[in-house]
Amino acid sequence: MAFQFKSVLITGANRGLGLEFVKQLAKASPSPKYIFATCRSPEGDTVKNLRELAASHSNVTIIKLDASDKQSIENSAAAVKEKLGDEGLDLIINNAGIGAPGKLLQVTNEDMIRVYQTNVIGPLNVVQAYHSLITKAGKKKGFAAVINMSSWLGSCEQTSTGGFYPYGVSKGAMNRMTRALSYDLIGDNVIAVSMNPGWVKTDLGSQNATLTTEESIKKMLKVIRSLDKNKNGTFCDYNGQIVPW
Amino acid sequence: MAFQFKSVLITGANRGLGLEFVKQLAKASPSPKYIFATCRSPEGDTVKNLRELAASHSNVTIIKLDASDKQSIENSAAAVKEKLGDEGLDLIINNAGIGAPGKLLQVTNEDMIRVYQTNVIGPLNVVQAYHSLITKAGKKKGFAAVINMSSWLGSCEQTSTGGFYPYGVSKGAMNRMTRALSYDLIGDNVIAVSMNPGWVKTDLGSQNATLTTEESIKKMLKVIRSLDKNKNGTFCDYNGQIVPW
Repeated sequence: MAFQFKSVLITGANRGLGLEFVKQLAKASPSPKYIFATCRSPEGDTVKNLRELAASHSNVTIIKLDASDKQSIENSAAAVKEKLGDEGLDLIINNAGIGAPGKLLQVTNEDMIRVYQTNVIGPLNVVQAYHSLITKAGKKKGFAAVINMSSWLGSCEQTSTGGFYPYGVSKGAMNRMTRALSYDLIGDNVIAVSMNPGWVKTDLGSQNATLTTEESIKKMLKVIRSLDKNKNGTFCDYNGQIVPW
Repeated sequence: MAFQFKSVLITGANRGLGLEFVKQLAKASPSPKYIFATCRSPEGDTVKNLRELAASHSNVTIIKLDASDKQSIENSAAAVKEKLGDEGLDLIINNAGIGAPGKLLQVTNEDMIRVYQTNVIGPLNVVQAYHSLITKAGKKKGFAAVINMSSWLGSCEQTSTGGFYPYGVSKGAMNRMTRALSYDLIGDNVIAVSMNPGWVKTDLGSQNATLTTEESIKKMLKVIRSLDKNKNGTFCDYNGQIVPW
């Protein structure tokens, strides 16, 4: 049975994968009733494309959410709750993430903490702040999902390079957190999954990458729509294959 | 061929597993020429047992090292370097670690950061500060090792419980860091390994645990003495078995 989410929250939705999620979901048929597209600075220059999307699709709502700021995340949840009324939230996509220079002898503690704060603590704070909304959906409909956007650089097994300390270590941490969430949320019919979008041509992935954002998101949406409880606590790639931790 | 390390650095050596490492190494025959037993507060009450050991074993040197403080780690490396003269450092055991309350809806960002700082950034800073000493040993002798003391709670695959956010996620992150180190150090003949000490009766492990510290350390020392380059970048448990990430 396909996972037909009526409401979805996407963090880091102003560019890269986040923006493309919103774009393809807005144009999907049927399109979710509520697409909450969040970003750090809704008024900023980098949000122009997202604002245009929201202007032409009434189900897209732009909401301020800074993944490095717990208060900002809690404020966003209050805004989303008001929009949803007494409906729950079916799907959270923790997509916002940052990188930093990663060589062993150059990496700074400040970058290690800053990246961990946004890439790991941010998604944790999102689950905490949206806990009542996502578990409400799980309890009402029997299924809801939290997706943590990870990376092949987060896989211990697949790692084949040194460096990338702030980013790679944060994604390894995120994967371990997905596992904890998969136990903490399933009692309310909410699954938690880490996803590997593949190596995508974004600011983080560079232009050497092998996938366009369009291809990656198209495939990931197919995987997301096919999620069921058997996938709880797994690391899925954009083709639906299980990635080793 | 057995790994006969002549010099070893152990962090968090004033209690639990760290203290027992020092104890068994000091009593071993042959005993390493240099046992650098580091802790946050060498003058503190909790360091009484370690001070007694150092008083009766001239190869045990107590050195101040606060794993949450990069400057303190760098200062310790300068002190160790002075002791070693033109010898390298054969073995680093990143053992210092802390925990914090871990339930999903109660865990605080402050605890997430504090535990990451000590359990992940601390070991990273140790490798950075001791890089010239450990690679000197690797280059001279053809083999040296960095051991990151992890936990079954750091294994995504073996995790079978929710909660433990600060600690479990930090150990998952540490495991991912071991993988990066295994690529960054092997060019100088230095391996990096994560170890699982088992469930040990320590302050962190509680008295419900299945292993005494004596048993865990005895077995881990056997594993450490059998390390070779084939074990680089793996997660080994106290019995020498490979733990899945």
